[in-house]
Amino acid sequence: MAEPAAIEPPVFARVAIVGLGLIGASMALAARRGGRVGEVVAYDASDAVRARVAELGLADRVAETPAEAVRDADHVVLCVPVGAIGTVAADIAPHLAPGAVVSDVGSVKGSVVAAVTPHLPAGVSFVPAHPVAGTEFSGPDAGFAALFENRWCILTPCDASTEDAVARVRALWESFGAKVDTMTPHHHDLVLAITSHVPHLIAYNIVGTAADLETVTDSEVIKFSAGGFRDFTRIAASDPTMWRDVFLNNRDAVLEMLGRFLEDLSALQRMVRFGDGDGLFDLFTRTRAIRRSIVAVGQETAAADFGRPGAPTPKEPGA
Amino acid sequence: MAEPAAIEPPVFARVAIVGLGLIGASMALAARRGGRVGEVVAYDASDAVRARVAELGLADRVAETPAEAVRDADHVVLCVPVGAIGTVAADIAPHLAPGAVVSDVGSVKGSVVAAVTPHLPAGVSFVPAHPVAGTEFSGPDAGFAALFENRWCILTPCDASTEDAVARVRALWESFGAKVDTMTPHHHDLVLAITSHVPHLIAYNIVGTAADLETVTDSEVIKFSAGGFRDFTRIAASDPTMWRDVFLNNRDAVLEMLGRFLEDLSALQRMVRFGDGDGLFDLFTRTRAIRRSIVAVGQETAAADFGRPGAPTPKEPGA
Repeated sequence: MAEPAAIEPPVFARVAIVGLGLIGASMALAARRGGRVGEVVAYDASDAVRARVAELGLADRVAETPAEAVRDADHVVLCVPVGAIGTVAADIAPHLAPGAVVSDVGSVKGSVVAAVTPHLPAGVSFVPAHPVAGTEFSGPDAGFAALFENRWCILTPCDASTEDAVARVRALWESFGAKVDTMTPHHHDLVLAITSHVPHLIAYNIVGTAADLETVTDSEVIKFSAGGFRDFTRIAASDPTMWRDVFLNNRDAVLEMLGRFLEDLSALQRMVRFGDGDGLFDLFTRTRAIRRSIVAVGQETAAADFGRPGAPTPKEPGA
Repeated sequence: MAEPAAIEPPVFARVAIVGLGLIGASMALAARRGGRVGEVVAYDASDAVRARVAELGLADRVAETPAEAVRDADHVVLCVPVGAIGTVAADIAPHLAPGAVVSDVGSVKGSVVAAVTPHLPAGVSFVPAHPVAGTEFSGPDAGFAALFENRWCILTPCDASTEDAVARVRALWESFGAKVDTMTPHHHDLVLAITSHVPHLIAYNIVGTAADLETVTDSEVIKFSAGGFRDFTRIAASDPTMWRDVFLNNRDAVLEMLGRFLEDLSALQRMVRFGDGDGLFDLFTRTRAIRRSIVAVGQETAAADFGRPGAPTPKEPGA
C-alpha cells in the first residue's frame, strides 16, 4: 500500500492517459488523489469524451491531439480497447519523449505486447499492465478513484521493459491502493481466460439464450431473475467493444479454458440425466469453499447477495 | 403490497412452519412482522435447529414433533428440500386439522405436487408456492424478515387447490411484501430452469473447472477473481442439499434449457475461433438491454458491482 503521499517524491512528473473510459478516468482520479504524479494529461479520440473529461475535471489538462498529449510526458498509459492499441501506439510513437515509460491496461497481454512493441522508438520502455478491476459501467462518468483499492494489478514485463520502468509502474499502481503481481504475458492470458474471459463468455451466452426462448417470455425471465439469473446479467452488461476485442485477442487461451468448462459440463449433464445425487452433492459442496477463500483474502464481500440494498449485513444474520 | 396490518384480520390463525432454513426462518420473521398471522409454530427435524430457533426467538412456539407442530394449524408450510417433501407430507398428514391449507416453498413444482398430494386427507387443500428469493446463506441464522419484499412468489395451483385456499396463501405472501403470480406447475418448472436452475448449474460448473486446472493455481483463481469469476461463486455457494434435489426433480426442464444453452455456446465458440467480431459485438450489445430491464422493474440494483462495498452509488458516477 502507498506510504503517506506528502513525504514521497512523484513517481512520474507527467502522466498522459490516452482513452478516458472507466479505467482511464479512474486512473486519472486515482493519480490526482494519490499524490505521486506531477500532472495528469488526458486525451481521447472522441470529441464528446474530451469535452466530458474537461467538464468533470478528471485531469489537469485535456489535450486536443495524441501528439500534444504525450509530449514531454514521462509516462503514457494506453487505456483503449485491445483491438485499437496497435494503431494508437503507432500514432503516439513519433511524439514520445526520450526515456518515456509506456504502459497499458488491456485485459489481454500477449497480443498487446505484439501489437505495441514494434512501434516504440529506442530508449522508450513498455511495461504491460492489467488492473483486475472494473464495473459493468463504461465511459468517463463511470470512473472513480477507489476502483483499484485492494484489487490486483498484474504487470507482465516483456523484452521492452527495463527494471527501473517496472519498478516505477509498480509504485504508481501501489499509490492507487492496488496490490501488484508480475507474471509472463502468456501465463496472464491463461489465468484471465478462466477468471474473467470465460465467465464473461458464459454470462453473455446464457443471457442471450434466455432472450431467445419461445417457451418462456422475456418478461418472465426479467420478473423472476432473482432466482440466480440476474447475477449473470451484471458482467453481460460490460462494454461490448472491449469484450469483442478480448475474445479476438485471447482466442487460444479462451478456447482451451472453454474446452475444459464444456468437458466438465458434459459430466454434470450426465449426473443430472442419470440422477447421480451423490456426484451433484459432492461438487456443490466443493464449490462453497472457493467462495469462502475469495472472501477471506478480501477480494469479495461476505455480505449476503453481494451487499445488494436490502440484504442483511454479515454481522446480523438473524436480523 | 400489504395494507396497514392493524385494520386487516388475520389470514391464518396459526401457521406451522416445517423446516427452518433460510426460507422457513424468513417466513417466520415476516409472518410475525406482517401482522396477518395469529401464531407462528416452528418445527425442524434437527434438534440443533430447533434449539437455535428457540434461542433466536423466530417463532411463537417451537414444537417437538411434526404432529405437535401441525395440530390445530389452519396453515402448514413445508420448507424442506424438495427431495424430502413427500416423506414430510406423509408424516404430517394424519395430524392435519380438517380444512387446513398446506403449502410449500420448493424451487420445483411438478414433482412436489406429485409427491405431496397423494398423502393429503380429504378436505385439506394444497397450494404449491415458490418465493423467488434467497441468498447464498443457509440455516435459521440466515433468515431475515425483508427477504421477500418486492420479490415474486409464484403459486402453481393444482387439483388439490381450492380457490379460497389460493386467495389466502396469496394474501399471506402479500403481507410479507411479495408480489404474487400464478402459473401451472409445468410452466413454472420451465421458467425456473432458465432463470435459476441452469444458472446455478453453470456457476457450480465453472467454479469446479477453475478449481481443477493444472495450468492455473487455485490461489491465482482466488486472487484474480475480481475480473468476473467471483460473481459466479455467490450462487455456487448455495445449499448443496437443496440444489441436489432441484436437479434430481426438475431433470427434463433443466436438460432442455441446458441443451439450448449449449447450442448457443457452440455458436459463440465458433465466433471466437473464427474471429467473428461483428457477431460477438451484436450479442454483447443485445445482452445489455436485459439487465437494464431487470433494473427497471426493480428486481436488481442499478448500483455498480451490485452495490458491493466501495463501489460508487448510481447517483454519483464521477465521484
